[in-house]
Amino acid sequence: MNFVSEALNLSKFSTERLEERGILRIAFVKHPFFSDVVDAVRIEKKFGIYEEGTVIVKGKDRLRVFRGFPKIKRILYLESGLKKHFGSTKIALEEKMNGYNVRIGKIGDEIYAITRRGLICPYTTEKAREKIPKDFFEEYPEHMLCCEALGKASPYVPDYYGIEGLEFFLFDIRESKTNKALSIHEKEEIAERYDLRMVNILLKTSAEDIENIKRVLEELNDKSREGVVFKDLEMNLPPLKYTTSFSNCGDLSYAFKNFEEYGRDFMLARIVREAFQTFEFQDNIDNRAYRLGKAILDSAVESIKKVKEGKEVTEELNLTFSSEEVLELFKMHLKLLGITFREIERKKRNDKIEAKFERVMRATTDKIKSLLEGNPW
Amino acid sequence: MNFVSEALNLSKFSTERLEERGILRIAFVKHPFFSDVVDAVRIEKKFGIYEEGTVIVKGKDRLRVFRGFPKIKRILYLESGLKKHFGSTKIALEEKMNGYNVRIGKIGDEIYAITRRGLICPYTTEKAREKIPKDFFEEYPEHMLCCEALGKASPYVPDYYGIEGLEFFLFDIRESKTNKALSIHEKEEIAERYDLRMVNILLKTSAEDIENIKRVLEELNDKSREGVVFKDLEMNLPPLKYTTSFSNCGDLSYAFKNFEEYGRDFMLARIVREAFQTFEFQDNIDNRAYRLGKAILDSAVESIKKVKEGKEVTEELNLTFSSEEVLELFKMHLKLLGITFREIERKKRNDKIEAKFERVMRATTDKIKSLLEGNPW
Repeated sequence: MNFVSEALNLSKFSTERLEERGILRIAFVKHPFFSDVVDAVRIEKKFGIYEEGTVIVKGKDRLRVFRGFPKIKRILYLESGLKKHFGSTKIALEEKMNGYNVRIGKIGDEIYAITRRGLICPYTTEKAREKIPKDFFEEYPEHMLCCEALGKASPYVPDYYGIEGLEFFLFDIRESKTNKALSIHEKEEIAERYDLRMVNILLKTSAEDIENIKRVLEELNDKSREGVVFKDLEMNLPPLKYTTSFSNCGDLSYAFKNFEEYGRDFMLARIVREAFQTFEFQDNIDNRAYRLGKAILDSAVESIKKVKEGKEVTEELNLTFSSEEVLELFKMHLKLLGITFREIERKKRNDKIEAKFERVMRATTDKIKSLLEGNPW
Repeated sequence: MNFVSEALNLSKFSTERLEERGILRIAFVKHPFFSDVVDAVRIEKKFGIYEEGTVIVKGKDRLRVFRGFPKIKRILYLESGLKKHFGSTKIALEEKMNGYNVRIGKIGDEIYAITRRGLICPYTTEKAREKIPKDFFEEYPEHMLCCEALGKASPYVPDYYGIEGLEFFLFDIRESKTNKALSIHEKEEIAERYDLRMVNILLKTSAEDIENIKRVLEELNDKSREGVVFKDLEMNLPPLKYTTSFSNCGDLSYAFKNFEEYGRDFMLARIVREAFQTFEFQDNIDNRAYRLGKAILDSAVESIKKVKEGKEVTEELNLTFSSEEVLELFKMHLKLLGITFREIERKKRNDKIEAKFERVMRATTDKIKSLLEGNPW
């Protein structure tokens, strides 16, 4: 762990204490595929200036720190929330996409992809190497590309967009060691020059323009999109986020499908968001109530039905790998994450390997089974 | 605490330990109105055979133990649940009413009413003295009447039945020291002889008669009633309970009105009940979804509206007392319970005193206020 002390400028003693307290954890599965990485640890829980998910890498050439992606605060009431936070500063409304947060950087000679909690993911890394032009890092060796990864081949979040494979949508370019973000203008210029796919910028305006801001959100909702991140154009203020009714209900549907796996706080938060939106947008409360009730009840009843038919409540993943080697590495990676999936199918198609994984929602399945057998709650 | 050791047949040392651990607590506010009670403690948490809410009373004549009312387990799936629990035993479906659980017994020369957690409630005691014939206790001095107390003048649960004042509905007669219940037949006979109002017995049947059982529940739901307690006629098996959709949604409505005061588990449990009922009753899922969504959203939005208008989220009580003395005693009793109500109105009408109390839901009010001011969640 000497490289951690050196990279973070900590005493050996402090680093050892962090390790003992479980705050420093291993960030990757050692494997030839990660040949540029000698060692890497991640920060499990924010300490000092270092965000959760920060990764310290001993690369084969030099030490690197990839700061964790900062938590974005959420407002529930747009009108006062935006004014209070941004005042009269110019802001951009960027589309918030529903995938998983990835930081992409160069270590040694290759591109690596780090997920939110600070793990170097072999699957995402493989895809990033296919999609992200390496020459960006020649110009910006100290920066990382913060992207939303999504598509039908996402291992972590189901696809809502009908996107084949796995795509990366850029939303921030940050200096990896300081977490300082480039301005939106610089980001746009770079994205265009390197042909990087970017999340949609839906509107540039200011907090006073509440009617247009609400309109953007209504349109997003009509298109079954997740929501918006509000950013000041210079990226000096922390961003804020806000989600559509579609997103709130989608989350609830997922949570109630797997109701024993999901936190009660998760459920309540989404319901309260929906209540505030109903109040602020002043549209038909009956439609919203119906949509909310459906999201909750349909998915819970669906799970009960499945268990009654003798099946289990599951989540399924369909992934494509370039080699058996990366597939096996990814399975080790899931183990490191503490997620228990089982592989239920593997097929060769062209030069790719298609694999189907299944995660059994054990707690929900067992609870439903017990209740259906007539046991009391 | 010597009387506790004596009544429960515990060593002095054991009793002291229970007191230290906070399991033995004071059960009443000392006051001339409770003149038959020299001392009384309640059991805050089940230990050994003694249920939570058990009260040990040093009466002016003798020691008494009033056992806590046993928790009734709930099933979520009727068909298997009833068969598993009752087999082919004959059962009664008693209406479960939505009030508060009261045990009524005689101490010294007078009737006293004990609430679920084991507190002697002055308000309920006053009303029980008006409604319950003392001569029952001449015949059954060792027994207690277990009743649901409800009506417009209920201090603890809003009225759902349009009942004036506070009424007591008998559902069990139990030997106070052993908690042994009389059979349903004996209870019916006694209720008739002493003119005690009883909860409705809706059906006597067995677990196999599932279609009629479901019909009873549907009828209850149509009449906006809470649910059913299933009991074997001899009262040898523990009862089971099951609630209607009306009740589940009513609870949710209340919980989401005061969403920061209410436990997340409380919310989830009611939603899951509704999902199991939707599955078992196979009726229109869309209607149920709408009802569920309305219950949740309407009440949450209502609270947001109130706070936006500068008001607070509150619960209101309208109570009638026979004297200022009992009113003041009841306020001390609420303090003992840890509930902070404020009295907002007091009127004399005929020889009664009408008082209006208001409880401010501080956590929910503050949370909504903060979110409306634009603070992040």
